[in-house]
Amino acid sequence: MTFSSMWADLAPVGRDPRSGGYRRFAWTGEDATLREWFDGEAQRRGLDVTLDRAGNQWAWWGNPDADGPGIVIGSHLDSVPDGGAFDGPLGVVSSFAALDALREQGFTPGRPIAVANFGDEEGARFGIACAGSRILTGVLDADRARGLTDTDGVSMAEAITRAGRDAAALGPDPEALRRIETFVELHVEQGRGLADRDRAVAVGSEIWPHGRWRLDLPGEANHAGTTRLVDRRDPMLALAEFVLAARSAATRHGTVATCGKVRIDPGGVNAIPSHVTAWLDARGAATADVRAVVAELTELAAGHGGTVAEESWTGATPFDTALTARLAALLDDAPVLATGAGHDAGILATAGIATAMLFVRNPTGVSHSPAEFAEEADCLDGVRALTRVVAELAR
Amino acid sequence: MTFSSMWADLAPVGRDPRSGGYRRFAWTGEDATLREWFDGEAQRRGLDVTLDRAGNQWAWWGNPDADGPGIVIGSHLDSVPDGGAFDGPLGVVSSFAALDALREQGFTPGRPIAVANFGDEEGARFGIACAGSRILTGVLDADRARGLTDTDGVSMAEAITRAGRDAAALGPDPEALRRIETFVELHVEQGRGLADRDRAVAVGSEIWPHGRWRLDLPGEANHAGTTRLVDRRDPMLALAEFVLAARSAATRHGTVATCGKVRIDPGGVNAIPSHVTAWLDARGAATADVRAVVAELTELAAGHGGTVAEESWTGATPFDTALTARLAALLDDAPVLATGAGHDAGILATAGIATAMLFVRNPTGVSHSPAEFAEEADCLDGVRALTRVVAELAR
Repeated sequence: MTFSSMWADLAPVGRDPRSGGYRRFAWTGEDATLREWFDGEAQRRGLDVTLDRAGNQWAWWGNPDADGPGIVIGSHLDSVPDGGAFDGPLGVVSSFAALDALREQGFTPGRPIAVANFGDEEGARFGIACAGSRILTGVLDADRARGLTDTDGVSMAEAITRAGRDAAALGPDPEALRRIETFVELHVEQGRGLADRDRAVAVGSEIWPHGRWRLDLPGEANHAGTTRLVDRRDPMLALAEFVLAARSAATRHGTVATCGKVRIDPGGVNAIPSHVTAWLDARGAATADVRAVVAELTELAAGHGGTVAEESWTGATPFDTALTARLAALLDDAPVLATGAGHDAGILATAGIATAMLFVRNPTGVSHSPAEFAEEADCLDGVRALTRVVAELAR
Repeated sequence: MTFSSMWADLAPVGRDPRSGGYRRFAWTGEDATLREWFDGEAQRRGLDVTLDRAGNQWAWWGNPDADGPGIVIGSHLDSVPDGGAFDGPLGVVSSFAALDALREQGFTPGRPIAVANFGDEEGARFGIACAGSRILTGVLDADRARGLTDTDGVSMAEAITRAGRDAAALGPDPEALRRIETFVELHVEQGRGLADRDRAVAVGSEIWPHGRWRLDLPGEANHAGTTRLVDRRDPMLALAEFVLAARSAATRHGTVATCGKVRIDPGGVNAIPSHVTAWLDARGAATADVRAVVAELTELAAGHGGTVAEESWTGATPFDTALTARLAALLDDAPVLATGAGHDAGILATAGIATAMLFVRNPTGVSHSPAEFAEEADCLDGVRALTRVVAELAR
């Protein structure tokens, strides 16, 4: 199976014919199809497939329990709503292609090698990103995870049960973690750091500090036709100010800030809302700058009787410094780039595992969109880079 | 059955225990309970109940087919999401109470009298307000009505069928219309026109021109963490400007304007939206002012690559001028007020029926909210006013 034939096999799975984007959510039928595809590719190559207690798939070449921990490559196969084809699958497909290249070269591993497929990386269904690696490492409590619900009210426990798995077994898996000596995740770049350079592959330095906040703005429900403007307490006006202030503060502090999800109650065309809930995503290279943006917005919300509450916060996550430098040197002095996106690699790095990332050029920088794209030549450069990395690390 | 015992019987139907508001939507179980209540009150008084082809209920005292068209009073029993107890039910309960008062006075009708319950007045489920009176008068095409769907994708035809009615029979009903000589709808006031006056009851003069517009703002889906601010096309910023501009334009032109419903695609916390859809409700005493507000906002949207499309428009709807003057004089020179809210009375007036409205004082002006309220003494004043009106018109 070449890179392009694996790519073609995945192309139709979970594709929305209207948007052209992907809807591959955890523990759905699409997810099951992707997991079967992973099993099939592993079996075709004689790899040993295991499922850890957190629902992540591992395809081992060699025996890490007998021969010591190994080199793990891989990424995830799920997507955001209307996501692109590359975010996740590029890393998994490139990993199988890299194994193929090593075997063609007659490479004999000095230690075990695995391809991993982390489950529920995007958190699109249950709201927590990197759920598979967070449960694996114990950062996300299994009981809390089981109780998370999707928009239809289905809990993760029910979804796992419906998928034919034992939800009670969900939990951290130190044994699976002990098998990893080093983890290298290849991923399509989600910005334009490589777009204007003459290089197709970069090495990741760190994940920016990032967080998610919930904004609550109270109002007073009333009739849209009969309530005088002066008598209104309309939280939509406060939301509008908040959205514009978020952009302004992010510009001044050199961060990014986004309001991509809003809930309006009761949500009727002829009703002044009683309440608006919105979510703020803010990230930046420096923690102090992100904190300054959130502080400004918290003050603005308070002025409207509202609140801003932190739902999640992850400080700057550097990848292994020595490993990053070694890979950049190995790859002909590849550019070293930070990223604003979270990844399973960041979760494993925080858990103390030597971790690195490779990024493949994205000419537009567009991601989490049907328009997400990378040139095939660049993808194949990514496979070659990953092959060299594994050959170096698993000598 | 006194006013207060009828009121107590209705109080629990469709009440949301968390918000304290009502969820009484067309052709649901709650709607069926309300219709049964109406039938019971009619039968208790020996009235003849009929259902017209549009699904509206009529309880006749006397025979309009034998003795000529009659005086119809009444309103509706359904609600907006988390609506108040008074909007609609006050008119129906007051109508039964007025009949009781007439009978206690030994009044002998000179023509038939009916209490009406118009179905689906709020349009909360299928999106079109006054659906019962619009279908009755032929303003809303029956095929179009049958095809309207609720948020679960259930069509009105399916909902009617599930409620045990014949959806194929839905349509205009000229015979039912011919039975109406005059229609008087009593309704809780939805503004503060009476709040600071020493009067509990007003007579309605007209319904303001009002309409509903759909705003579409295109964006470019992208990753919230990795897309530089300068590379973004985020339609939430345009929405924020639109919301603030709507308030500003309404203030300058002396109208009201509201954005109470917004849809964000894809709606993920970590995704820059690809598209924002919002709805504008705008009303005012003068058509030109409302049009000026919408024109300003259309230009603003166009500047962001967006569009504003008219979904509905109703010009100023005056009630019967002679009838209005006659009722105001009868009720001791009652105040005469215009309203920004639509009503079945407006639909019937447009259909050429002599129509008037009575408004009962609302001390806060709050409506379409669990906090909607009227003092019981004011409600009883409303019943007395309605009793005098029917005695005068049905002599």
